[in-house]
Amino acid sequence: MALIVQKYGGTSVGDVDRIKNVARRIKKTREEGNGLVVVVSARSGVTNELIARAQAITERPDTRELDMLLAIGEQETIALTAMALQAIGVPAVSYTGAQAGILTDQVFTKAKIKQIVPKGILKDLKAGKIVIVAGFQGINEEGQITTLGRGGSDLTAIALAAAVQADKCEIYTDVDGVYTADPRIVKTAQKIDEISYDEMLELASLGSKVMQSRSVEFAKKYGVVFEVRSSFNHNPGTIVKEEVAYMEKVVVRGVAVDKDQAKVVISNLPDKPASAATIFNALAEASINVDMIVQNVAHTGGVDLTFTVQRDDAMSAVKVLPAVLKKLGGGEIKAYDNIAKLSVVGVGMRTHAGVAAALFTALGDKGINIQLIGTSEIKITLAVDRAKADEAVRAAHEAFGLSK
Amino acid sequence: MALIVQKYGGTSVGDVDRIKNVARRIKKTREEGNGLVVVVSARSGVTNELIARAQAITERPDTRELDMLLAIGEQETIALTAMALQAIGVPAVSYTGAQAGILTDQVFTKAKIKQIVPKGILKDLKAGKIVIVAGFQGINEEGQITTLGRGGSDLTAIALAAAVQADKCEIYTDVDGVYTADPRIVKTAQKIDEISYDEMLELASLGSKVMQSRSVEFAKKYGVVFEVRSSFNHNPGTIVKEEVAYMEKVVVRGVAVDKDQAKVVISNLPDKPASAATIFNALAEASINVDMIVQNVAHTGGVDLTFTVQRDDAMSAVKVLPAVLKKLGGGEIKAYDNIAKLSVVGVGMRTHAGVAAALFTALGDKGINIQLIGTSEIKITLAVDRAKADEAVRAAHEAFGLSK
Repeated sequence: MALIVQKYGGTSVGDVDRIKNVARRIKKTREEGNGLVVVVSARSGVTNELIARAQAITERPDTRELDMLLAIGEQETIALTAMALQAIGVPAVSYTGAQAGILTDQVFTKAKIKQIVPKGILKDLKAGKIVIVAGFQGINEEGQITTLGRGGSDLTAIALAAAVQADKCEIYTDVDGVYTADPRIVKTAQKIDEISYDEMLELASLGSKVMQSRSVEFAKKYGVVFEVRSSFNHNPGTIVKEEVAYMEKVVVRGVAVDKDQAKVVISNLPDKPASAATIFNALAEASINVDMIVQNVAHTGGVDLTFTVQRDDAMSAVKVLPAVLKKLGGGEIKAYDNIAKLSVVGVGMRTHAGVAAALFTALGDKGINIQLIGTSEIKITLAVDRAKADEAVRAAHEAFGLSK
Repeated sequence: MALIVQKYGGTSVGDVDRIKNVARRIKKTREEGNGLVVVVSARSGVTNELIARAQAITERPDTRELDMLLAIGEQETIALTAMALQAIGVPAVSYTGAQAGILTDQVFTKAKIKQIVPKGILKDLKAGKIVIVAGFQGINEEGQITTLGRGGSDLTAIALAAAVQADKCEIYTDVDGVYTADPRIVKTAQKIDEISYDEMLELASLGSKVMQSRSVEFAKKYGVVFEVRSSFNHNPGTIVKEEVAYMEKVVVRGVAVDKDQAKVVISNLPDKPASAATIFNALAEASINVDMIVQNVAHTGGVDLTFTVQRDDAMSAVKVLPAVLKKLGGGEIKAYDNIAKLSVVGVGMRTHAGVAAALFTALGDKGINIQLIGTSEIKITLAVDRAKADEAVRAAHEAFGLSK
């Protein structure tokens, strides 16, 4: 008998009928001879409703009380899911995060899992029951309810899979898996059968919204193999696992794009050793995350510094910087909010040369101007004009033969 | 500094504005120099919504899972109430039943409180915080969430008042207190300032819907003095406490009426020793509660047996009885579902003679026929025609001078 952890997201348990559908899927997996721990999210929309109710009370609700409030979303789903299973003759029992022994740190609304003590779960599994666990929540040392922040239910599933030493971990969502590109942009995009943690991490952090990076990082750290697949059909999904040799045969695994980027250019910055550090410290203090950075000495004798930020942060950056530049003794600011970030990702890049050249050629052939370039061992990232982003994704997808 | 336990019911916390209103009341009590533990119910309507959702999944939801589901109603209110207090500058912290240390037995949906271990609560009170506790819920020995059944939040408040040795316990509701009669029936009905546990118990069990008997019984057992009052004004309410000598000066404390009664008459029952026992055992097995019972030997040589039941149970009684009568060898059944039960209650009856006579006279003067009579030490109960019930209540109220 295999032990499987399944996780169903908010759309998969969005209403009573969908919960019944999930119960039938679980029953089927059980009838194939498996033991199951099932993690469920709140019904889609519920968490936002609860936040709205809190904000009708006070603009800035206390985070401890917010976690107390938000935890009820998943508590509803676990009870209803357990009932739906019992109604079709499957023994099931629900667990809150606290009952499941999911111990976290003290940071409300974005707690980290410190340890899982799945004593009760293992006992109920042994008794032949399906165990339904509330995602997204845990309990701290003082017995207070905490929540894990965005993507928290995925994290619950992966951490539980590690804790109960599951044979498989299946993350059910509303897409079929991870694709070589966004199928809305590239019609010939292919579902990826297997992908390494590192590739998944790069795609997750680059606008492929399938999963949050922290869940993938956790899976990588504890060696949890998981599959991302759809709860609305029975197609196989994408398996995410440790890199194996044959993965390197593929040069590029996928192409990701993030269209919500802005570019800030500071020109004629005085050429002092601490200039860049002063600027990025000021931005960090204002909680502005800087992504790509390029610096070069300008022909005027000063320095040109260019960086990208999330589009939402561009205005804040423009507000923070003048005071800094004044202190440094010069420099002009220009911001452009029409930037997209395109990335090609693949562990094969480590062993294949000429990937950058092929990418530049493909974009050049289409007359797409490259504004900034960044690279890592398994990724090349380019900033391009947002209006050209879709065309650039299609060109890159084509250039690396991802349409099969 | 006095320590006060306050309980606010579902209508008092029915929406965001009412929760803010409750927060202001709590703040006022605190500013008068008091420490507070506040018990809140689910917003009115929420529990029924949750039950409806469960029944959309399965007709007969498992009781463990139902408790897991229902507990979220109060968990929402505690978080919102704590937020509302913090928003007006009052330090507050919410507790689920489990966190409050409310330990119950294993009977889901109608658990009994076994013990309260208020360690965390006492610590937070000492730190100057208002402690907000979810009513209606607790935790059993296995760490599973239980609920306490109807009137559960009142019970939570009274049990907590005993556990933290509160100086006062205030039950806030949508009425001003306990009245000498239902003000909708008797316009001159008066609010009762003080009432003994026993009187309150008789009234609670007799259609005065202010509180469930079990909460009053718990208060009596542990000597918790409590006040029933309105959360919508600042009028003093009704104080419920141990009987004291001066209470006996009043002969009748109040008049209660229950209009949902039915009468079953079995005539010509064979006069055997076990006849009545056989009948009432059969009714008990069918979960039918019998209230008033009268038996007398009929002129025909058989026995006439008359009893009252809740109106809903009359049909079941009529279904169950024929088989029993057949076994006993005779008897005819007639049922009347147009019965009301009128009770006058007062500890003064113990020392005052002639109460029954005065009551019969008052009703007789109005031409109201008395169908059955039952008495206890502090109560006289009469069954009358439902159509005459209101008139009977007014006559009794008048006869004992309750309009002042």
